[in-house]
Amino acid sequence: MMTNPMLLSRLIDHAADHHATTPFVSRRIDGTIERSDWARMRTRAKRLANAMTAQGFKVDDVVGSLAWNTSNHIELFYGALGIGVGLHTLNPRLTADDLRYMIEKVGETTVFVDADTLPLAEQVAAVTGMVTRWVFMDEPGAPVPESTLPGFVTKTAFIGDASDDFAWPCFDENQAATICFTSGTTGRPKGVAYTHRSITLGSMNMSMADMYGTHRRGAAECMMPIAAIFHANGWMMPFTAPMNGHKLVLNGRDFSPESLVELIDTEKVTITGAVPTIWMDLFDAADRMGSKLETVRTGLLAGTRPSRGLAERFERFGITLCQSWGMTEVPGCSRSAPPAGAEDWTPEEQREHHLARQGRIGFLSEMRIVDDDGKVLPFDGEHAGHLLVRGPIASGSYVGLAEEEAFEWLETGDIARIYADGSMEIVDRAKDVIKSGGEWISTLQLESAAASHPAIAEAGVISVPHPRWQERPLMLVTLAEGVNELDAAAVREHMLAFVAKWWLPDEIRVVPTMPRTSTGKLDKMALRRLYAQRSENIIA
Amino acid sequence: MMTNPMLLSRLIDHAADHHATTPFVSRRIDGTIERSDWARMRTRAKRLANAMTAQGFKVDDVVGSLAWNTSNHIELFYGALGIGVGLHTLNPRLTADDLRYMIEKVGETTVFVDADTLPLAEQVAAVTGMVTRWVFMDEPGAPVPESTLPGFVTKTAFIGDASDDFAWPCFDENQAATICFTSGTTGRPKGVAYTHRSITLGSMNMSMADMYGTHRRGAAECMMPIAAIFHANGWMMPFTAPMNGHKLVLNGRDFSPESLVELIDTEKVTITGAVPTIWMDLFDAADRMGSKLETVRTGLLAGTRPSRGLAERFERFGITLCQSWGMTEVPGCSRSAPPAGAEDWTPEEQREHHLARQGRIGFLSEMRIVDDDGKVLPFDGEHAGHLLVRGPIASGSYVGLAEEEAFEWLETGDIARIYADGSMEIVDRAKDVIKSGGEWISTLQLESAAASHPAIAEAGVISVPHPRWQERPLMLVTLAEGVNELDAAAVREHMLAFVAKWWLPDEIRVVPTMPRTSTGKLDKMALRRLYAQRSENIIA
Repeated sequence: MMTNPMLLSRLIDHAADHHATTPFVSRRIDGTIERSDWARMRTRAKRLANAMTAQGFKVDDVVGSLAWNTSNHIELFYGALGIGVGLHTLNPRLTADDLRYMIEKVGETTVFVDADTLPLAEQVAAVTGMVTRWVFMDEPGAPVPESTLPGFVTKTAFIGDASDDFAWPCFDENQAATICFTSGTTGRPKGVAYTHRSITLGSMNMSMADMYGTHRRGAAECMMPIAAIFHANGWMMPFTAPMNGHKLVLNGRDFSPESLVELIDTEKVTITGAVPTIWMDLFDAADRMGSKLETVRTGLLAGTRPSRGLAERFERFGITLCQSWGMTEVPGCSRSAPPAGAEDWTPEEQREHHLARQGRIGFLSEMRIVDDDGKVLPFDGEHAGHLLVRGPIASGSYVGLAEEEAFEWLETGDIARIYADGSMEIVDRAKDVIKSGGEWISTLQLESAAASHPAIAEAGVISVPHPRWQERPLMLVTLAEGVNELDAAAVREHMLAFVAKWWLPDEIRVVPTMPRTSTGKLDKMALRRLYAQRSENIIA
Repeated sequence: MMTNPMLLSRLIDHAADHHATTPFVSRRIDGTIERSDWARMRTRAKRLANAMTAQGFKVDDVVGSLAWNTSNHIELFYGALGIGVGLHTLNPRLTADDLRYMIEKVGETTVFVDADTLPLAEQVAAVTGMVTRWVFMDEPGAPVPESTLPGFVTKTAFIGDASDDFAWPCFDENQAATICFTSGTTGRPKGVAYTHRSITLGSMNMSMADMYGTHRRGAAECMMPIAAIFHANGWMMPFTAPMNGHKLVLNGRDFSPESLVELIDTEKVTITGAVPTIWMDLFDAADRMGSKLETVRTGLLAGTRPSRGLAERFERFGITLCQSWGMTEVPGCSRSAPPAGAEDWTPEEQREHHLARQGRIGFLSEMRIVDDDGKVLPFDGEHAGHLLVRGPIASGSYVGLAEEEAFEWLETGDIARIYADGSMEIVDRAKDVIKSGGEWISTLQLESAAASHPAIAEAGVISVPHPRWQERPLMLVTLAEGVNELDAAAVREHMLAFVAKWWLPDEIRVVPTMPRTSTGKLDKMALRRLYAQRSENIIA
């Protein structure tokens, strides 16, 4: 058989050749809407690739981006990746010092910025001299701000009169494509370099019939990632949309739930994906705005398990909840596909399954669970252990690691059970799980049990030291709208329906807000920093 | 990212680990039904692999099979492929001399046979001494026939007491996996060696949401290929079923439509696939037997375009017709996915689209159409040209070709149009198309137009020489059940609704039966042999 490499230039070519007029809609940084299509996106990407090639960029080089979900950013994705140049997508939610660390680790000397990230870029430039050329992704006709950035140039000037007549080069499919750093919930951020091969396979994986369940064909589907595309490729949607000829909608820099609801309704989005906290914000906004989100049929959810209340809201909005487990280092491992016989389940049984399991394991991700000594545990739904993954969509190293430090199995940092029917249950993060009297308590399950109580908006459980049991749970909660006081005894009583009595938190404390990470997840490191030391650790 | 090779052992491991009890049902050669599951299939494959390894089989070796759609055959697929041994699947519908040619071309010295193919194997052994070991795939407890085959041994004896404790080896994903020869409609049969990479990608391709359209998840789907698994991997179903955890049903050696209908109904098959002639036989049998084929939701169709009458029968049976274009050398290139806006079409408009187009181009298959001089033609739905394909699921060589004879683009031998919306239309086989007065006449379109007339069961058009127009069409037809005579003028009148007047065949001749190839397609070579020379070529 032909051994053509799987390169990402094939995706944009396929979309432009065979889904030319399928819309690509994006919000600009100034909030206005831009309407384009896949044919025009290829033209833009080719012009940029031509200009970059003329300026000496080639396979193995890396450029950076500090940018939001815009068409300019997608143009850079396909323009840079198409010529084998890696794209380090920096997260504008981080501090200048974090960004300095990442830029120096990867070593890019050219970074593309937008009108929103320009001030942050100036802070970055003040702390590192690594970047010698800052390219401002301007909009036709819009004014260009003044800047003191070294090598400051607009994208328009950078491209000049480069033609869109360009043939994509051929190179090794294991060439690095996008590079992004883990969000930091797992300690010091680590850089993951996705390859052309892994992104192509990962996008096929996300496009398989058993991933979304309700997936439709071609332009009948309209995708909008709610996640930022700078992080883990925005659920792969910048790649799955052209692969399948879907309409793609991007929200620019505006992540306000109201603006997202408006975009979903006006552009008739059918598939979107977000972490649970963002879904809650979205449903709240839709309720306030009187939107039924009626075009959305499929809601992807990952990051952490949904609460019962959240699952009920998916039902009320008529959105099929598709849960997938994955992480920056290995996206989209499990899928919503229910096991044999599930077609005959009641809606309640289906909901319970969604709540109890994080999907079914897809064939591209080989999984293992092992105990503390590395002994492999059975897939019996009883043994819980450290989850390991390997396969062609998993990261086997981190940016800057020496070749001999590469690993055969990725340690996910999660504790999981795997059931005989192929489904998996994430018990907890290994470093979040509470070891009390030698037994594990899952903070995730405690949070899920508490959050299903009507008075509670969100719950976060952390471990606090205990003289007898070594560790005990402390629960922080935010109150539901309209609730002013918490009846802790009633909450404990409620939680007993879901967890063992000895799991119940010794203290439940109401806090004004929950800290979140740059990707919108509950920030347990911050919770520990804020509350673990100050706990009085009263045994209730 | 990890660079784990994509090997087919992953598929059976995935199915056995995570879809262990999903059924695998197959008809034995004696007609009885065997019930198994994916876990037991892996155990069998591992025992066989262990025995083969002990006997010295290793990566790069090839064994042959002369066998039908049985569990023994699937055991051999996974057992041999799992250790990197190629499997040359021989077609028992061919003659001993054809098989001799193929065996000597590939060079396998061990061939696995079943109770049905044993007599044919003895004919083959009489004309070639290449095979020194014939393994009889026996059934537990069933009697073993006498045989004069050299090195005759039962699979039970071959395996001996080999254990199922076996770790699949790791090797290059470009290693040859199954090998099969083209069906011969395109001249001298040519051997195609699928690789582990191409089969894995091809199976993912067949599992993508836009391929089947109605595809469901895991064990909710029950697949049965009606094609033989020795040819082009049986529509990939032996691989897509374990990949997705589908139930798999195999029909043994029994391809009688009645038996297939019975198997579909008793095993509740939801997806099947066949060429148009087989679909017609299946619907006829279902009608005779009073079956509604009610569990079947998705009907894959390939090989040639369906007639209007056939499309209507899909509708009457409530089966979604999913057309895909492909060939032995590059299976599953296009998919049923309709273009933008198709959701709003009426059922009639959808049917017309199905009839007029052979699906939408999938991203793994890069396509070109070129004129006789190799000039690339536009995708405008007007220009028709020779269809070329390239990509990681396309064959870039044939068995026995020297390395320098490998080709960058596969010449499909089809004449096609590609439309701006990504759909393709197969105009004709390049060697079937009739060049009349310098213009092309599509035999496929003539056949389709004729077959939609109620008096005609099937039509086949061939070219006959003509003194003025160089070539003119001759049409052979079989009559519909209950029709004794043909009103040729009425048929011509009917055809005028679909084709130009000058395309109309000069002669329409009723024949008792249509010759078919070993894969069930209309055999145009036989038609030409039988009728082209004897035509009187009367201008009507």
